[in-house]
Amino acid sequence: MLRFQPICYHNTLGPHEPVLRIPNGETVITTTIDAHGMDQHGNVVGSRPNPLTGPFYVEDAAPGDTLAVRFDHLAPNRDTGFTYTPVAPNVVEPGFVPELPPRQRVLWRLDRERQTATLAEPTPGLAALSLPLTPLLGCFGVAPAGGQAISTMTSGEHGGNMDYRGFVAGVTVYLPVFVPGALFALGDGHAMQGDGEIVGTGIETSFEVQFTVRVLKGKTIGWPRGEDADYIFTVGNARPLDQAVQHATTEMLRWLIADYGLNLAEAGTLLGQCVVYDLGNIYDPAYTMICKLPKRVLAAIARP
Amino acid sequence: MLRFQPICYHNTLGPHEPVLRIPNGETVITTTIDAHGMDQHGNVVGSRPNPLTGPFYVEDAAPGDTLAVRFDHLAPNRDTGFTYTPVAPNVVEPGFVPELPPRQRVLWRLDRERQTATLAEPTPGLAALSLPLTPLLGCFGVAPAGGQAISTMTSGEHGGNMDYRGFVAGVTVYLPVFVPGALFALGDGHAMQGDGEIVGTGIETSFEVQFTVRVLKGKTIGWPRGEDADYIFTVGNARPLDQAVQHATTEMLRWLIADYGLNLAEAGTLLGQCVVYDLGNIYDPAYTMICKLPKRVLAAIARP
Amino acid sequence: MLRFQPICYHNTLGPHEPVLRIPNGETVITTTIDAHGMDQHGNVVGSRPNPLTGPFYVEDAAPGDTLAVRFDHLAPNRDTGFTYTPVAPNVVEPGFVPELPPRQRVLWRLDRERQTATLAEPTPGLAALSLPLTPLLGCFGVAPAGGQAISTMTSGEHGGNMDYRGFVAGVTVYLPVFVPGALFALGDGHAMQGDGEIVGTGIETSFEVQFTVRVLKGKTIGWPRGEDADYIFTVGNARPLDQAVQHATTEMLRWLIADYGLNLAEAGTLLGQCVVYDLGNIYDPAYTMICKLPKRVLAAIARP
Amino acid sequence: MLRFQPICYHNTLGPHEPVLRIPNGETVITTTIDAHGMDQHGNVVGSRPNPLTGPFYVEDAAPGDTLAVRFDHLAPNRDTGFTYTPVAPNVVEPGFVPELPPRQRVLWRLDRERQTATLAEPTPGLAALSLPLTPLLGCFGVAPAGGQAISTMTSGEHGGNMDYRGFVAGVTVYLPVFVPGALFALGDGHAMQGDGEIVGTGIETSFEVQFTVRVLKGKTIGWPRGEDADYIFTVGNARPLDQAVQHATTEMLRWLIADYGLNLAEAGTLLGQCVVYDLGNIYDPAYTMICKLPKRVLAAIARP
Repeated sequence: MLRFQPICYHNTLGPHEPVLRIPNGETVITTTIDAHGMDQHGNVVGSRPNPLTGPFYVEDAAPGDTLAVRFDHLAPNRDTGFTYTPVAPNVVEPGFVPELPPRQRVLWRLDRERQTATLAEPTPGLAALSLPLTPLLGCFGVAPAGGQAISTMTSGEHGGNMDYRGFVAGVTVYLPVFVPGALFALGDGHAMQGDGEIVGTGIETSFEVQFTVRVLKGKTIGWPRGEDADYIFTVGNARPLDQAVQHATTEMLRWLIADYGLNLAEAGTLLGQCVVYDLGNIYDPAYTMICKLPKRVLAAIARP
Repeated sequence: MLRFQPICYHNTLGPHEPVLRIPNGETVITTTIDAHGMDQHGNVVGSRPNPLTGPFYVEDAAPGDTLAVRFDHLAPNRDTGFTYTPVAPNVVEPGFVPELPPRQRVLWRLDRERQTATLAEPTPGLAALSLPLTPLLGCFGVAPAGGQAISTMTSGEHGGNMDYRGFVAGVTVYLPVFVPGALFALGDGHAMQGDGEIVGTGIETSFEVQFTVRVLKGKTIGWPRGEDADYIFTVGNARPLDQAVQHATTEMLRWLIADYGLNLAEAGTLLGQCVVYDLGNIYDPAYTMICKLPKRVLAAIARP
Repeated sequence: MLRFQPICYHNTLGPHEPVLRIPNGETVITTTIDAHGMDQHGNVVGSRPNPLTGPFYVEDAAPGDTLAVRFDHLAPNRDTGFTYTPVAPNVVEPGFVPELPPRQRVLWRLDRERQTATLAEPTPGLAALSLPLTPLLGCFGVAPAGGQAISTMTSGEHGGNMDYRGFVAGVTVYLPVFVPGALFALGDGHAMQGDGEIVGTGIETSFEVQFTVRVLKGKTIGWPRGEDADYIFTVGNARPLDQAVQHATTEMLRWLIADYGLNLAEAGTLLGQCVVYDLGNIYDPAYTMICKLPKRVLAAIARP
Repeated sequence: MLRFQPICYHNTLGPHEPVLRIPNGETVITTTIDAHGMDQHGNVVGSRPNPLTGPFYVEDAAPGDTLAVRFDHLAPNRDTGFTYTPVAPNVVEPGFVPELPPRQRVLWRLDRERQTATLAEPTPGLAALSLPLTPLLGCFGVAPAGGQAISTMTSGEHGGNMDYRGFVAGVTVYLPVFVPGALFALGDGHAMQGDGEIVGTGIETSFEVQFTVRVLKGKTIGWPRGEDADYIFTVGNARPLDQAVQHATTEMLRWLIADYGLNLAEAGTLLGQCVVYDLGNIYDPAYTMICKLPKRVLAAIARP
């Protein structure tokens, strides 16, 4: 197990100088700062948007491989977070936009013992609001293909700012590797978040993070994938949502064919009656849709 | 309680001659036939698409009111259903479409005692597949505004072919009333269905149905709404999914403001961290997105 | 040549009682009222939206045929028209919407001798504005398939409210026939209009209209088509624009294959380098895209 | 006037080492290679996608300025070019995709004296096809914001692979400057192209190019703009087309307000009746829509 204390942060996922080389199979404990660059001590040590910790060079990872990252532990490491309100103009009818009040910052208290979030300055209507923490990472990924450096505001095949409330501890994510060492980076912790990130934030805060990497040699995937105790899932990042659905569904079909031995007729029958879609985000430059299949259904499949 | 035995079916929601007048508050027991017109005896007695039972003229319902319909009981009334496979071409990447096999019908056995569905002619990969029934109505609604008669293939403010797996027994739906008597009709039972109806069907079958109507006088809504034990929800029907999200979210904001006394800043804070979106269908001419809010969260709101 | 004086108007395209039976090949002279129901005398004789003259029962027209309608003459028959401003909220970035001023009506003077439009109450910046008239019909079509009656606010395979500035005199439009007699209706004259109808109107006014019908027996098309002296074109009506492009392009490919003897590889080569797309409207419930091919290019094709 | 002979090419627009520093106001004569890396001698000297000549460091250009680039001369410098066929799967109805034949390369002869393109291996249907050359640049732009390096396959606020048939000689384009020196690069010459680049290419070939740069100090724009003898225009790059329209229209409104002294009500009136939209591309990862206003209309505006 390695401990890594970041001293600089990146606002793009790209071919940056690695901050650390980590062996295949290694576990790393580190920290991330919030989307506006604030750390656990309230110091602003990084710049917007979404400053990431890393990149980490994962030994053995080469283009065409897949990088598996298990989120072992994700937890806020300070007692405050922030959101914005109202909902973003792109998630309401265009004619309703003028009714939205000006955008304002909302401060939250994070009770790390009780694992709850409450408003720091509650308004009358929400005075009793107390929400359970479900810490997740909004932004992580690898260096993209073609020598690109892509802003941590957006996402793509390489991961990035997917802002999906399902990227919690216990999940293993799979990312395509485009450059030697993969160059994995992570950040943008949310103490909790609704579907779609429709106010443009989860409860943004700094995190302590533990993750474990594993290289799947010679395994090539097209889009991020993941699994937890109950589901396997695929991720599509694009606009509009329709296209994000297309990427996620196609990636799921490829998975079912390659690893579960189904043909496309069988995969259609299975997905048609059992698929679940989650709306990751409908705020960032690329939207995110998740295509999920319950493991209990997969258990019924006769693998070849 | 009224029992109604249909003798004709409609393929549009519109200003048709009512088949029955029902008092406000009344409960109706009736049957529906499947999407291709087959009844519980295997006889084809209606024509495609989605032949509906009704319309029912609900006394007291006038334009500007809201019609509440509680689905008391929904159950297949025969032992077979059908789906199609593979997934629809619009839910995969355009370049992947040529890999899809030809569209074919899949027959299912419905075990109404065990409440399971199994393939009538199982293929090797899916031989052990057994899925729990979750009967739902794919298509229901009222006569639309402006003298229109709209095909039961599609949906809109008036409801219609929303194909959302959440329209199960126990749900109360709310529909805007555009014409005297509302002219409610229903059909297109699915023994179960995945998110998005991505093969173009749930497990299509005929149903026995019990529902109860209630007129909310002077209550005006813009889009279908609903609630069950755990959630309140709103429905947006449009293409692309982005626009369906806009309708559903705007309708939810209007609900929170009018009935829960929140302002738009508070409503944004609440939805931002607690909203859940379901993908109703991404197959029909209008797609359907559902915007949900947990009742346990609403319980914390101090109503004025 | 028949003269028809309308006494009622319809707000849906559907299976209405025909106002007149017209022989195949006949020419009709009639009038239309503006989008808000005002006639040439300033009397409001119809209701919103887009009250249409008709429907006309065209003898010989049967489902599966195509109805050709040549717009022989289109001209405003009064000296005023109206538009709205500012641009619609859906055509600007969502975050820009709050900057738009309130919607207001703008009155225009139509000089029918000089064929120009000027502002009735010019603002300082636009005091010198004088625009040439290019009269067009915003809304026309036939009764749709499946017994539907569809609002004249929107459009589809049957035509409808396409609001394309190219539907001017001299154009022949082709419409699929879904019901006996086709039931053609027309209205929503615009003295002129920009691409996209981005303020929600052209210069709305009442018209005198002359058109000639012709039935193409046994010729089946999927979407509206048209031609003028310089182009053949196809029309796609849907949201988002991407889907409207798909319908229009697919319909053009079908035309090139069936009537010009090209294969899909040749049709691709031709369209790829020579196609022109016009943005009909991006305001109505269904948007409209036009796919055009110059006749001078078609002249080079060796028909089989 | 400077002559520059490229020896290397870039596949991203980003913070690359400049190949040349050019004074504000200078004219440069250089060459570009085709989208697959082939130069005028038939040698492959660059790699896919769209290898660009440059970047050029323009003296005086600083973040917040605008870079004006006039395309003085654009011409193929060899006698061949290539396209692909059939049309891309995303521009036809999803259900039509399986009918498309396999993608194939099509070779063209470019007659630089007569300024025509003909098929090198004409098929029967297109044997007589001869098209006039209208040489344009498919891809050019500046280094994007935020330290990004973005693939020349796509486009954004910084320009990039817009593939608009209107970027011909005589046009002046305006680009936002995000980094010192702007870092302008260009390539992807098309001997001609239809709207939308629906086969994924124009007639791809190598070019000789002459352009002149000018820095507009303190002038800040949001998206690429341009003008030719007849129009001013703005460019939106995004998916879906609807969003590209939003960016282009908003940018045009900002232009009319800032430089022509109109208010938003006047700008709406003007655009509503006079705007023209061109479909740049509907093939690349970001689509491109152009919003145009005729200069003859602008001539009527009373500037303050």
